[in-house]
Amino acid sequence: MSKDESRKPKLSRRDVLRAMGVGAVTTLTPALTRAAENSTDSRKTEVVVVGAGFAGLTAARELVRSGRKVVVLEARDRVGGRVKAGKLAGHAVDVGGMWVGPTQTRVLEMIKEYGLHTRPQFEQGKDISELNGRRVMAEGEETGMDAETQAEYDRVVKELDRLCATVPPDQPWNTPDAEALDSMTLQDWLDSTTHNKIVRAFLEASMRVDFVAEPYQISFLYCLFYLRSGDNFEMLNGYKGAAQAFLVNETMHEVAMRMATEIKANIVLENPVRAISQDANGVTVSSDKGTWHADYAIVAVPLPLSVRIAYDPPLSPERDALAQHMPMGSVIKYLVAYEKPFWREQGLNGMTWSDLPPSAVICDVSPADGKPGILVGFFEAHNALRWTGKPREERKKVVIERLVEFFGSDAAHPIDYEDQDWPAEVWSRGCYGASMPPGIMTTIGRVIRQPHGRIHWAGTETAARWMGYVDGAIRSGDRAASDVLGAYQQSKTSA
Amino acid sequence: MSKDESRKPKLSRRDVLRAMGVGAVTTLTPALTRAAENSTDSRKTEVVVVGAGFAGLTAARELVRSGRKVVVLEARDRVGGRVKAGKLAGHAVDVGGMWVGPTQTRVLEMIKEYGLHTRPQFEQGKDISELNGRRVMAEGEETGMDAETQAEYDRVVKELDRLCATVPPDQPWNTPDAEALDSMTLQDWLDSTTHNKIVRAFLEASMRVDFVAEPYQISFLYCLFYLRSGDNFEMLNGYKGAAQAFLVNETMHEVAMRMATEIKANIVLENPVRAISQDANGVTVSSDKGTWHADYAIVAVPLPLSVRIAYDPPLSPERDALAQHMPMGSVIKYLVAYEKPFWREQGLNGMTWSDLPPSAVICDVSPADGKPGILVGFFEAHNALRWTGKPREERKKVVIERLVEFFGSDAAHPIDYEDQDWPAEVWSRGCYGASMPPGIMTTIGRVIRQPHGRIHWAGTETAARWMGYVDGAIRSGDRAASDVLGAYQQSKTSA
Repeated sequence: MSKDESRKPKLSRRDVLRAMGVGAVTTLTPALTRAAENSTDSRKTEVVVVGAGFAGLTAARELVRSGRKVVVLEARDRVGGRVKAGKLAGHAVDVGGMWVGPTQTRVLEMIKEYGLHTRPQFEQGKDISELNGRRVMAEGEETGMDAETQAEYDRVVKELDRLCATVPPDQPWNTPDAEALDSMTLQDWLDSTTHNKIVRAFLEASMRVDFVAEPYQISFLYCLFYLRSGDNFEMLNGYKGAAQAFLVNETMHEVAMRMATEIKANIVLENPVRAISQDANGVTVSSDKGTWHADYAIVAVPLPLSVRIAYDPPLSPERDALAQHMPMGSVIKYLVAYEKPFWREQGLNGMTWSDLPPSAVICDVSPADGKPGILVGFFEAHNALRWTGKPREERKKVVIERLVEFFGSDAAHPIDYEDQDWPAEVWSRGCYGASMPPGIMTTIGRVIRQPHGRIHWAGTETAARWMGYVDGAIRSGDRAASDVLGAYQQSKTSA
Repeated sequence: MSKDESRKPKLSRRDVLRAMGVGAVTTLTPALTRAAENSTDSRKTEVVVVGAGFAGLTAARELVRSGRKVVVLEARDRVGGRVKAGKLAGHAVDVGGMWVGPTQTRVLEMIKEYGLHTRPQFEQGKDISELNGRRVMAEGEETGMDAETQAEYDRVVKELDRLCATVPPDQPWNTPDAEALDSMTLQDWLDSTTHNKIVRAFLEASMRVDFVAEPYQISFLYCLFYLRSGDNFEMLNGYKGAAQAFLVNETMHEVAMRMATEIKANIVLENPVRAISQDANGVTVSSDKGTWHADYAIVAVPLPLSVRIAYDPPLSPERDALAQHMPMGSVIKYLVAYEKPFWREQGLNGMTWSDLPPSAVICDVSPADGKPGILVGFFEAHNALRWTGKPREERKKVVIERLVEFFGSDAAHPIDYEDQDWPAEVWSRGCYGASMPPGIMTTIGRVIRQPHGRIHWAGTETAARWMGYVDGAIRSGDRAASDVLGAYQQSKTSA
């Protein structure tokens, strides 16, 4: 957006129409239409939601369903946040959050509610593991470890799960031995728990995918909490029966589109919020397209970006420090299309596990009819930091070379390549979510959901269940909406 | 500042006068005076400097000395940044950066240039070390280790210094074995280097003070670079002959005041910068008191806060990620005044080393005549995160209790107490500086001084020499000014 636009507080009819264009919204609320037509720079509503990702849209939806007047202000030119649709060989694909697991009940409910469909992640055939310099193939998503390695792996994962189970997900700072667990990194724990190189390589690679951060960047207590929020290590890292069990046929992004369609609230796109002030009477939200007055605000943006809004009065030092100490994960997601899923003809299912760059995991996310064949993978953690901001063609070259190593020369001839450089996305500045390094959970972690006066926080980082996932984002939206409704109730009672 | 003020783009004569009130500035530049009187919301200059800490003031000073027109925009109601004056028992004291060492030649030159005076840090008498549950007293700043412990200490520090010397301070990412050193924490290195509990406790406590972060939060490579930027461990951590050798009689903050007095540039206080856009012709800087157009901008604010300004075009993903991954240190500085330095009568010099909360170090910073007696200490790292935002009286209670443990019941009767809660300071959000956790230096550390088009970076975090110190801030200002002058030169040549 040009500077001049950004200084001018007005909302054109085109803005509103474009905002509504995200779905089949047919009715504009007359109040906003008038506001827009009048080009006034101040508008009244009940709740302003900042951010139209899954958290913000869910919060807005729940509030609207409870009869509240809501405006959603979104910086991007689209809804969905870290869930985003792209085109690959003419097909709609998700270049952001995508998979669903059987215990992610909130997102599953929503997919069903909106009449959308899931299919299972493909895994018929053999996968390829290339860990610690050794390549093996195995059925489905098995890792092909020898018996001794498998026994050690089972032992380590059992210990991880045992520790996981000690974490109260709503209050991970109250985990037994929290301070000790929080003063070591995940890498420290792995190093002290097993010397088996294959087991270490597999767990490091898996958790590099979970956090899109290196295992030496993550607090072990935070790691345990994160795994616990999705049940345990295997639930997070598996495909079948686990967090990568299903894909949404119509794209996950379509769920966000349907939510935007449902809520008759006003969604204003391309409208970054710059400042939120509050007093005893309400909040004032200043954005590039003007100022809104409301009773409450829900800020539903990635946690580290939440402090780029100016607050008056300022945030507590703990909340500000929390945002400073929770950097976003680093990931670039790529999708590669082939005429057909040729690897299946070789008896391969397209799945790989690897400790070599750029990708710890790759798998086959072709549509049900296999037309075209699609492989998906990620530049994770440091590989993302090294490749972010570079020309797409350079990343494509590296990816294709790696795919040829895994799947042979047929992989050299894709019909399309798409990737999403999340650290370069100005309103996400990373993906999937923000993680805690050592020493944060036990000192200031407890403020993560504490409202700042009339400002409530949403976003997957604030979820206690499926934190970091779309399901967690939805749950955080539910919770923020419920908190605001509770605040209305309380003010009514005390009035 | 109230919301209304913050939305109104105007510069009153009072603003200018208040800005100039920081020193004995007698002349206002006519151009700005006219601009102010006209209450126009757009002004032209050559360079806008964002931030009037030591880095910003130095950059502005050097540019003014080179004949450039400069405006300094400062969010606070004062200059000095993380150097700040306070009052204690009627005396001016530094509640921010304070000490000077013999190799901090830039700040020493500046102190001399402005006719200010230093005195040595007091250390006549015995200090108290309380490490690993054992209290000993020793002369000066000695730690009173037994011979065996001392030998082990010497061995570990020698190894630390050896590694330090391998770091090229301008390019720490090119240190031999950089990736290995950057994938471990300082704590990992300490744990693997010595099992002596006293040595570990002393080094942990010392470096908790150096970084005001816990040793398990800091990349070991970053630690080596930081130590190297100030020569080595002992130069950073010692008093006599080292970084805590001298105090400025008139306060360190007075140096900032003199700089503000010298530069005839316009300093506008209470004026947060919100956005900077640029094109081929120059930069446009939007602030609460209006918009400035200039050829270049120098952003000289704490590195993590630099991304709270909106940039158009946006920052590179590497620069944004760097800011996300460099949280500010956490420290609350306190000063306690007594009628006299009573500890001296007990043969004590007021220095302590300790591994117990709230403070790893305390020392005597009384004025030369010992009237009053003043002890200074810090809530460091996690102790600061635990105590930030709390009422001052609660912190005072904890401090006085600890001082009584060290110095006896006389310590129970201070005549004054002052502290500065840096994480709560909205335009610093921590102190002294921002540090790197593992894995950042070797991936994106190299962008730390890379300009963003016409925007150059200053601030102590961008210094290669005395990074994190006032001296480093000054050097960063020198460098940024020189870079901008170089850019002028180059555009002249290429024009």
